[in-house]
Parts: sequence; structure tokens; C-alpha cells
Amino acid sequence: MSKPLIFITNDDGVRAHGLQAAIRIARKFGDVVVVAPEQTQSGMSHAITMYSPLFLRRVQQQEGLTVYALNGTPVDCVKMAFDHLLKDQKVDLVISGINHGANSAISVLYSGTMGAAVEGSFYGSPSIGLSLLDHDDNPDFTAAEEFGTRIVEGVLRGDIPTPMCLNVNVPVGPVESLNGIRVCRQNKGYWREEFFCRRDPRGKEYYWLTGDFCNAEPEATDTDEWALSHGYVSIVPVQVDMTDYSRMAALKAKFHQE
Amino acid sequence: MSKPLIFITNDDGVRAHGLQAAIRIARKFGDVVVVAPEQTQSGMSHAITMYSPLFLRRVQQQEGLTVYALNGTPVDCVKMAFDHLLKDQKVDLVISGINHGANSAISVLYSGTMGAAVEGSFYGSPSIGLSLLDHDDNPDFTAAEEFGTRIVEGVLRGDIPTPMCLNVNVPVGPVESLNGIRVCRQNKGYWREEFFCRRDPRGKEYYWLTGDFCNAEPEATDTDEWALSHGYVSIVPVQVDMTDYSRMAALKAKFHQE
Repeated sequence: MSKPLIFITNDDGVRAHGLQAAIRIARKFGDVVVVAPEQTQSGMSHAITMYSPLFLRRVQQQEGLTVYALNGTPVDCVKMAFDHLLKDQKVDLVISGINHGANSAISVLYSGTMGAAVEGSFYGSPSIGLSLLDHDDNPDFTAAEEFGTRIVEGVLRGDIPTPMCLNVNVPVGPVESLNGIRVCRQNKGYWREEFFCRRDPRGKEYYWLTGDFCNAEPEATDTDEWALSHGYVSIVPVQVDMTDYSRMAALKAKFHQE
Repeated sequence: MSKPLIFITNDDGVRAHGLQAAIRIARKFGDVVVVAPEQTQSGMSHAITMYSPLFLRRVQQQEGLTVYALNGTPVDCVKMAFDHLLKDQKVDLVISGINHGANSAISVLYSGTMGAAVEGSFYGSPSIGLSLLDHDDNPDFTAAEEFGTRIVEGVLRGDIPTPMCLNVNVPVGPVESLNGIRVCRQNKGYWREEFFCRRDPRGKEYYWLTGDFCNAEPEATDTDEWALSHGYVSIVPVQVDMTDYSRMAALKAKFHQE
């Protein structure tokens, strides 16, 4: 049996420590191809590059590991891999991450890490977005690697129907301090921003966007936010039908015209 | 009773003809504030600007209409409006568009127009993303304005519970050629890309990303793709819980650890 082929990308860029942590996980299981953004792409969501050309650069090549950098978004990286570099090859797994910072709750929508993971699932490979709740440049990835390894093993060994995409978040702390894994639903909530106004050296005003998450259901115990705040690794299965079926009947009554 | 306050943004930028079409619709109903991107932001999805400062520029001010340009993404524009410019004001409606090009099916995930519409709904205002199936720079917006007006009127006059976000797409053609409005679900499918490789004047290879939509359910008759290809304006109600509930039980059995 041939070795599994694992594709990795991230949104923190090709030089991020979290990318190396994801590579360490993947190399335990198979051959690895990486296409990661040249620059940080945090908050880039599902964005694609439509109006500028993409330059692809091979950064590293050794037995079982090839790393490319692309001057695009995380989703561009996935597309470059599946529609160009690995075209006609079967990819057994996509890992996006390990992200420096949480991607729980509604952050799934803003996250470049999760944009890439979701995009990977469109190509028929099981896909895992992996995030550590630590924004530090060089955090301790030990627990995220340990739980990431368990989850990757479960996905590769299991006969899980595709498309499948998992949003995995890991709390900060040593492995033995974490309580285990919880499969959860996405917590309801939203972000509210504060705009910090400054003046540039020429006197012109500019703004920095900075926000806080507002948890709309702090009492719920089956959400990713609850799991993370109680020391569990959270797994949310992600799908992309955004239709609000609960509104179909009322809207049909209001708007349908034949 | 005071006039409704309507906020408008788009992803084609502050100079797009479609923005003017949205302003024409909105001014029939109320006072209008616009914050639109300085540059085209097509394909920017739900991206936010985290690592560069935002400059806000007032472009136009007259009775009942104020227009700003922001060097950010469509979602940045919404946040700048709700968390800064219009803070503490009640916004009665958000319109994002009119987009030059379709945002049906899975394009809801890539679209800057829909990213902004969804973000608007997070602030408690009913929100409409409006797109015309014509990528031309200066298409005929007559039918999109006519149907957009009907839908805006229905939303403003109705007592529709929030959060509410509608993804509205309008086929090309004169008003009388369209068959009416259909409330639909999001068509399942995905994009496949082709990368066109060129060489720059210094001999370096680069790629242009270009894609085609693959309809995964061409036979279905309750989808936005079906409605649009049969001459109907499509309305898909959009929500943001991306949890794949169908997988919860199997994943719990596999991964739960207490």
C-alpha cells in the first residue's frame, strides 16, 4: 500500500512555527506537500485572488516533503495544489494550520485557516483546520500536536464519508491539563469592533480595526466555546449550505410570483 | 415617523455603476449612508483587514445621501459604518451591491458582496445582497433595480424577524422577460480552477486563476441555479451556523473522550 499523501496549508504564512508543527504531525503518517502563503493571511476568510498574478516558489524539497510558497490567499494555495501541482493525484488528507489563535464560533467565517480547510474539502479529501488558542509567534504546540495527531489518525484510519471538514481548536496548556476531546456545534455570536484612530506623520487620520467576540449563548454547554473554556479540545464538523431553511415558507408566502 | 436609514456597501468599489443603482433603489425609501471600498474587492469573501491601517474618505455629501470610501474590504466597510460612523443609530436596512456578476450557489462563500451582507445582518439590520448576472462594467441595471425595489419594499414594510440576510440574484434581460421571484435553497456545487501560466518580462513564471462552477445537482428544481437559468430572480435566505449536524453522532462515537 502506498503512503498517504497529505496536503498542508495555513494562513499565518510559510514561515510560521505552526506550519512546522502541522508538518511534524503529517510526516508521522505520509508524504507531505505544502503550499503556504508568502505573507500572513489571517482574517482572509474564503478570499481568492482575482486581479493579480500568482507567483509560486519552491522553498524546500526532501524525501517525503515538498514546500511551496505562493503570494496569494490560503484558498488560492489549496486551488494551486489541487488544480495544478497535485492534479490527478489522490490527496488523502488536508491539514490547515496549526493556526496561531482561536478559530471557534463565528470565527470560522473570517478565518483564512478555515477558508482553506473548507476549500480542501471541496476536492473530496477529508480536511482538518487546526488552531491553537495562542496568538504568540512561537507558542508551545505540544498539546496541539498531540491532539492533532490523534485526530489525524482517527480520520485517516476511519472510513469517513467525504466531503468532510473539521474545525479543531486546542486550548492552551500542557497535554495532561486538557480534559479530552468534545464534538460540538458552532457557538452563536458575533464580533464587535473598536476603531482606534491615529494620525500619520502627515496629519492624516487612519484607523486600526480591533474587536471582541460577543457570545450570544454563554449558557449553552454543547458549543465549541463551552468546550474550550472548560479545557476540552473542540471539534466542529463544518458544512457549507448556508440556506436558512427556517425562513423558506414565510419568504415564499411574501415574495413568490409566478 | 422618521425616514428609514439605509446603509449601502458593495465589493466592486466606490466607482462601480452597480453602487449607483443600489443608491437609486435606496433613496426611494429613506436616507442613505454608503461606505464602499476604494478598490474592487471581488472574491474577498468575509475577509477583514488586520495588518494595515484603514483610511476613510468622504466622497459625497448631500441631503439624504453621504458616501464614504474606505481602503479596506467589504466587511471592513460594514464594520466602519456600524461600529464607528453610525454607532448608536438604528439602521433599518443594509444593501450590498448591486454586484456586477452572479453570487448564486457556493459563490455566497467567496463573494465580497455577500460577505458584507452577512456582516450587516450581525448588527441586527435586515440585509440584502443584490447581484446582476452580468460582469460588464456598465450593464443595464433596469431589471435589477425594479426587482430590487420590490424586495426592499417587502423587507422594509414587513415585520421580518432579524437577523435576516437575503442573497438575491437577477438574470440578464428586460423586466418583462423575467418570470418573477423564486425563494430557493443554495445550489450544491463547487468551483474548479484552471491556472493560466505566463512569463513576465524578466522570464519569471506566474499564474492567473480562472474557474468554472460545477453544479453538483443539475436536476434539482428548488435551487437558485435552477431559478436563474429559468428566468427567475432568486432569493436565498442565508444563515451562518456552518455546523454539520448530520455528522455529530458518528464523530462523537469516534472522538469523544471524557
